[in-house]
Amino acid sequence: MKNISMKSPAAAILTIGNEILSGKTINTNASFIAQELGKIGVQVTSVISVGDDDKAIKRGLKHALTFADIIIATGGLGPTRDDITKKAVADFFHRTIAIDPKQLRIVQNRFSAMGYDKMPENNITQAEIPDGARIFPNPRGTAPGLMIRDKETRCFMLPGVPDEMTLLMTEHVIPYLKHHLRNDITILYRTIRTTGIGESKLAELLDPVLGSLESPVVAYLPSPKGVDIRLTVKGTNQKELKEKIKNIENRIIFLASEYVYGFDDDTLEKIVGELLRRHNLTIAVAESCTGGLIGHRLTEIPGSSDYLDQAIVAYSNRSKIELLGVKSETLETFGAVSEQTAQEMAEGIRKTSTCDIGAATTGIAGPTGGTPQKPVGLVYIAIADKFDTITKQLNLYGERSRIKIQASQALLNLLRKHLNEKY
Amino acid sequence: MKNISMKSPAAAILTIGNEILSGKTINTNASFIAQELGKIGVQVTSVISVGDDDKAIKRGLKHALTFADIIIATGGLGPTRDDITKKAVADFFHRTIAIDPKQLRIVQNRFSAMGYDKMPENNITQAEIPDGARIFPNPRGTAPGLMIRDKETRCFMLPGVPDEMTLLMTEHVIPYLKHHLRNDITILYRTIRTTGIGESKLAELLDPVLGSLESPVVAYLPSPKGVDIRLTVKGTNQKELKEKIKNIENRIIFLASEYVYGFDDDTLEKIVGELLRRHNLTIAVAESCTGGLIGHRLTEIPGSSDYLDQAIVAYSNRSKIELLGVKSETLETFGAVSEQTAQEMAEGIRKTSTCDIGAATTGIAGPTGGTPQKPVGLVYIAIADKFDTITKQLNLYGERSRIKIQASQALLNLLRKHLNEKY
Repeated sequence: MKNISMKSPAAAILTIGNEILSGKTINTNASFIAQELGKIGVQVTSVISVGDDDKAIKRGLKHALTFADIIIATGGLGPTRDDITKKAVADFFHRTIAIDPKQLRIVQNRFSAMGYDKMPENNITQAEIPDGARIFPNPRGTAPGLMIRDKETRCFMLPGVPDEMTLLMTEHVIPYLKHHLRNDITILYRTIRTTGIGESKLAELLDPVLGSLESPVVAYLPSPKGVDIRLTVKGTNQKELKEKIKNIENRIIFLASEYVYGFDDDTLEKIVGELLRRHNLTIAVAESCTGGLIGHRLTEIPGSSDYLDQAIVAYSNRSKIELLGVKSETLETFGAVSEQTAQEMAEGIRKTSTCDIGAATTGIAGPTGGTPQKPVGLVYIAIADKFDTITKQLNLYGERSRIKIQASQALLNLLRKHLNEKY
Repeated sequence: MKNISMKSPAAAILTIGNEILSGKTINTNASFIAQELGKIGVQVTSVISVGDDDKAIKRGLKHALTFADIIIATGGLGPTRDDITKKAVADFFHRTIAIDPKQLRIVQNRFSAMGYDKMPENNITQAEIPDGARIFPNPRGTAPGLMIRDKETRCFMLPGVPDEMTLLMTEHVIPYLKHHLRNDITILYRTIRTTGIGESKLAELLDPVLGSLESPVVAYLPSPKGVDIRLTVKGTNQKELKEKIKNIENRIIFLASEYVYGFDDDTLEKIVGELLRRHNLTIAVAESCTGGLIGHRLTEIPGSSDYLDQAIVAYSNRSKIELLGVKSETLETFGAVSEQTAQEMAEGIRKTSTCDIGAATTGIAGPTGGTPQKPVGLVYIAIADKFDTITKQLNLYGERSRIKIQASQALLNLLRKHLNEKY
């Protein structure tokens, strides 16, 4: 099979579905696909969204092909009446469609594994394959990924469900393109993840390193979890590019180690989990204002049962007393949202759970419940271990959901720093 | 000025800028614009994203015009070298560009208001206006909104900065279109949210209602939380449209009440919270495999402290025994992932918390920990109240994170049904 011939390969993304056009769904698929393609040096020249409409899909394909040899189409591969992508794309490339017996068995097996006596009839369309199309298996759904090749054009079709699309992109489309591209240009991205510092203050702090940099290109990406610094370099010598990034990375860490918690896809729950595992420590969490979010985040990591023993969401005063051993005098004197209560929560859960570390949050997530003395966004976090108990006051702002995220992030970052320093 | 003549006005959105194509920026502008247009009955037929490139912009315009008389272009109106939208669009419509003295004074004044002695020179481009273009003032930035009219075509150009774009859309573009459209057409959307049933089975179940429907247009949108059914109707009589939707909605609920939990932006945590509040009930949750996610979801709702007393994430066997009163014989005989354990967890937390309702989850979220008898995805959920304890076995599939979401959704849906039936 001939390799894709262009020196600078170009792709177009075609997202199909009325939900994008109505504005009800934000097109996150396109940004994921563009980023993945960028990593292997494939540039996206256009993103087109059209509805579940035969004519519109074909016009979209035509437009896409004026600028690109690679098309990634997503959406409209489901079993229902509005799913017409396969038919429209096959038509466009003058291919017939027929049921593929092997694919039919795969779909049927999936339904019997889910406990169905019989596959719902409309799912037979999931086994229909355009003539000559390559099939990419989809373990997360019933619609496989497909690719039609027409001379130098390669048109991929992927389901629109994000977790199915991302899997097919990373496990099939990208490896396929990498193999066939023979592309010398590499674009490298590196994300340095920070938390606990605002965008402009971070930019000020890092100005000596990043201020006047031409390459890599620097972008600051803020979110409730913190600010990511994204570095982008482009070139032909991968080793050189990596060294360049490494060098800048080290200088950033030197200036901002308090805030830098990881790289690329790292999350604080992953980093904290690794530290707990490395030092053979167990943890128990007492949550008030975060409402279970810290437990949820820690248990997103496979194998977290090795170090997370329990999390207790003690929302009422009574449950703080009964489950965590907070003294009723403390609650009366200082209130549920206070440094003292946070401290007793952390110490209390450490004691009753017999874990190495107890951690706690208490605060006012809002929108109601604030007072002039204790406004919405006031949060106390605490960590208790064999050495000591440390507490920290946070003054957060924003919506309830954002305050919960920021508080969980602050506690996990305090844990990260503490585990790094003391163990 | 002639009104826009089409019976069913259509628009295309053209977003211009390399940041969308690189995947670094998610196209939230397009979804905002689409929603605003939808409210006044203008349907978006395509969304096209191209780079800061003359040829690409012109191709995009050409594509956009095949399906629409209204174009909303965003981005590329800034003062820097890569901002070429105005030039490319003017060129496309054969217009010359010249400095508008009035606009120049506005830009100069803005800079002196910001404390500049002199306007940075490249900002003179902000006063360049295509011949005959309508100017919409932009109080939030230096680039005004523009509109070129060419026969029945109206091409709007708006800055890409979200808060400038949204202001210009709502204060100028929408009122302008409303005035000139004389459009009586309204588009109504209604989302019916379901969970606990797959897309194809749901389509089968609802076939008598939705199978051969021409209007409203029906779309099934699956996610780990369930399948949303999106209805779209279009017409001139708003009251009639509402009745039409209401009628179909009722027939859907009649057939699928077990699965329908809400509408539009409803979430299960909101619905369950409302039911608990209405019946003056308190709840405590014992979580194993969901790891705090149910507590987190319930506490996303403001005021949830009124009914949620506590949530206990009991990850270890010891914590299940000590905190929830699960019998060690139960764990030994049936295992931590069993109907019996789920039942004792729900009953245990109900008893110790003295809440009206105890709810529990236990299961194998994976990716490890599965056996042939108890595979990854096997989950038991339970609800205990004054009447009885009900349990349910779930067989889920997918990633750890997806299994947690599905399990939390199943428990909340079981709660919803139970509260509706028994209280």
